[in-house]
Amino acid sequence: MTGGTPEEYGTLYVVGIGPGLPDHMTKRAKDVIETADCVIASNLYQKFLREDGTLPPEEEFDDDGCVTRDDGHEQQLVRSSMGRQIELAREAFERVRAGEDVAHVSGGDPSVYGKSDLIFTMAREEAATDVPIEIVPGMTAALGGAANVGAPLCNDFCTVSLSDKWRGWDEIEEKLRAAAISSFVIVLYNCWRNYEKAIEIVREERTDDAYVAIVNDAGRADTGRNGEDQFVTTLGEAADHDDKVSGMGTSLIVGTHETDTWSNDDRTYLVTPRGGRDVADF
Amino acid sequence: MTGGTPEEYGTLYVVGIGPGLPDHMTKRAKDVIETADCVIASNLYQKFLREDGTLPPEEEFDDDGCVTRDDGHEQQLVRSSMGRQIELAREAFERVRAGEDVAHVSGGDPSVYGKSDLIFTMAREEAATDVPIEIVPGMTAALGGAANVGAPLCNDFCTVSLSDKWRGWDEIEEKLRAAAISSFVIVLYNCWRNYEKAIEIVREERTDDAYVAIVNDAGRADTGRNGEDQFVTTLGEAADHDDKVSGMGTSLIVGTHETDTWSNDDRTYLVTPRGGRDVADF
Repeated sequence: MTGGTPEEYGTLYVVGIGPGLPDHMTKRAKDVIETADCVIASNLYQKFLREDGTLPPEEEFDDDGCVTRDDGHEQQLVRSSMGRQIELAREAFERVRAGEDVAHVSGGDPSVYGKSDLIFTMAREEAATDVPIEIVPGMTAALGGAANVGAPLCNDFCTVSLSDKWRGWDEIEEKLRAAAISSFVIVLYNCWRNYEKAIEIVREERTDDAYVAIVNDAGRADTGRNGEDQFVTTLGEAADHDDKVSGMGTSLIVGTHETDTWSNDDRTYLVTPRGGRDVADF
Repeated sequence: MTGGTPEEYGTLYVVGIGPGLPDHMTKRAKDVIETADCVIASNLYQKFLREDGTLPPEEEFDDDGCVTRDDGHEQQLVRSSMGRQIELAREAFERVRAGEDVAHVSGGDPSVYGKSDLIFTMAREEAATDVPIEIVPGMTAALGGAANVGAPLCNDFCTVSLSDKWRGWDEIEEKLRAAAISSFVIVLYNCWRNYEKAIEIVREERTDDAYVAIVNDAGRADTGRNGEDQFVTTLGEAADHDDKVSGMGTSLIVGTHETDTWSNDDRTYLVTPRGGRDVADF
């Protein structure tokens, strides 16, 4: 802080809680949520945060969503929902001005297709230059999903969202093509839209035997839509598995020509080698 | 587990602890390190893990690196060093076969230029198909660094390592060029090598006024080489700031033509908008 904000103000924290249950949440995220005066979170994220006591059980809250935490401080829980984003951002600004620390909860990482963008856009629009903002990073689904299948990201990777709600498909297609040609491992987000179209584009630039992992609800155990699982297929066959691509909890990890499988007695892993090195190089 | 491994075996965990101090470590990573029978970690990571008691203070360990944890179980700490990677992987396999859970500590995320690659390469080389391996994801420096500067990754991004030790520079150059042309935010790792050369390549494809953040020792507070800081410059001027690009703790975040700065009364943030939406779209 260089210190332009009045001292009695709180801070607006945009907090990434990781892909699912609190196992993959950072200590910093947990601390901020536990100590905030106000927590804004969707029903799904509230459910996740109750798993390890980061939020108290529902029955401990009064009708206004208020609860007294173990250390005696009062906390208010506000339900976030898709249609109320502007209203919630404004409310968050007002609360910070009234001295509250506000934790605005985002799934995964707040920057990677999360809530950071919204908060900065709103702050700019409302000329809220007096409100301190801090981003608390979280585990994005690409990393959580990759760990579940082994080590598919060990060389350079990129993330591409398939949602064309805010951007033209041309831009998405150009990125997919560039990434496919130049041998990035590609992690696809928002796969319930356009995933077959995306696979077709990558197939034009990469061989059909490249491995693809379909990762569902990484970090969500049985709490997700389909339950946490991962499925390894190839680029040529990925479009045939639309039953595995179920919704917002699904990511696809598209390997390069170097990505390979390795099986031990327990399971099969997907591994992208770092480069041309062998064991003697280590 | 589908269950080919003998029941008396332990598990080899490759554990990402995030970019620095345990603030950005996940609960899962902390749990695995605290309960493992053996922890393999470099001196630097040991230092980080002592900050919040994930590892006990140095004086509690005996001459063999053994300590009795609060719950009564004995844990051995093994120092990892660059030249001993093969030996350490072999030792880890043997310990797992003897029934130990081994936590092999990696900075950041084990996949993103971390230790996963090494473990799988060694397991393959040694035909260690009997050893169960689990990857515990961690916060990679791209996310930790991005949060420190605001929200520079809110549209599609990629990571590129500038280390040409294992891969040809041609491959790195091709990736940089493809990412620059197709408007990915580009996060550069291993910047102490070749960073000025990389900037020159991106400059050929992207305008000089694109913003660049130089992020040092994200998550390391004053424990890093230069102390945690971030510096916002432009593509045209980035190569003039080699004094800020100090070592393994430095990442560069190269914005797109849409990436912009936004200042409030406290500081300046770097923000890449998600797309063409404005407030009314939310």
